[in-house]
Amino acid sequence: MADASSLDALVDALRRLPGVGVKSASRMAFHLLQHDREGAQLLARALQQAAGNVRHCERCNTFTEAPVCNVCLDTRRDAGKLCVVETPADQAALERTGAFRGYYFVLMGKLSPLDGIGPKDIGLQKLFDRALDGTVSEVILATNFTAEGEATAHVIGEALRQRGLNVTRLARGVPAGSELEYVDLGTIAHALVDRR
Amino acid sequence: MADASSLDALVDALRRLPGVGVKSASRMAFHLLQHDREGAQLLARALQQAAGNVRHCERCNTFTEAPVCNVCLDTRRDAGKLCVVETPADQAALERTGAFRGYYFVLMGKLSPLDGIGPKDIGLQKLFDRALDGTVSEVILATNFTAEGEATAHVIGEALRQRGLNVTRLARGVPAGSELEYVDLGTIAHALVDRR
Repeated sequence: MADASSLDALVDALRRLPGVGVKSASRMAFHLLQHDREGAQLLARALQQAAGNVRHCERCNTFTEAPVCNVCLDTRRDAGKLCVVETPADQAALERTGAFRGYYFVLMGKLSPLDGIGPKDIGLQKLFDRALDGTVSEVILATNFTAEGEATAHVIGEALRQRGLNVTRLARGVPAGSELEYVDLGTIAHALVDRR
Repeated sequence: MADASSLDALVDALRRLPGVGVKSASRMAFHLLQHDREGAQLLARALQQAAGNVRHCERCNTFTEAPVCNVCLDTRRDAGKLCVVETPADQAALERTGAFRGYYFVLMGKLSPLDGIGPKDIGLQKLFDRALDGTVSEVILATNFTAEGEATAHVIGEALRQRGLNVTRLARGVPAGSELEYVDLGTIAHALVDRR
């Protein structure tokens, strides 16, 4: 739109964001240039800062600006328990429950053979080194309950069990507050099998 | 998510984009930092360039990097016709039809009293100056056929007619390729009234 090459370049760059097509990108560019140039400058600085400063925690692989993240530096946690999650957002959800006081390992992805994402792409070796450092007695697999998350949990679980570790998986079952009538059949079947 | 303040700042900055909430912003930040740091740098540069270089055409008010845009510099166009649109995207749609060879004026917005957007906010004075420069004989109102677009067309039309200009509006009617059975009643009623 219009004859401004830096506007076209901005629309193209915005399209690299996940879930943003050419219409959304045009709308975003229009909004920023017409109503929020300050926001555009702020976003530019935030992008440069984050891309320059954010790296991976040496112990748990999550995003951090220090060599080791705050969770890993917290010595009051239970060093025997290591919870494996896919993303920092999943870790944040677990932290909000307040029900887990061990350490984490963040895969930053999941196995997805169809997309060509294998064990090396999500740093499984780093996980194995961490899990087998001698302090961990139980690894809790908290990858998502999607096909890819389940496959990832299976591969990690098999590998760690072979190396003699105690491996558990988050329980599958009926969500809190739900009525059986409206819960999908697969979930009820799992809840029946895993009854206690 | 995670303990990186520049990551939080990036999520906050992404939320200034229209239609982006905290979940989308987190997903975008994760994608850029984990899979596309080059894209993050590219977007940062594109934002700075656009925010620094893009300004408004002196004649038609659209986005451009020169004082006057290419459309306004095109001397083969019919200087007697001026088409008023809301945004550069609307202008681009009209240009793609190839059915209009006059000049444009881009409002960069629409009257919206409920949002506190009045005549001054969308630069109506600039439009009046342009329309009354002596060369324009017909002003074609091509604002959107929404409540706000119609109100904007009404206000502009009244003002320009008082100043002695010939003002027309894009025809309302049944869209090309559509079957009457599936066209909404308001559209059919308009098409009936405006029959020719």
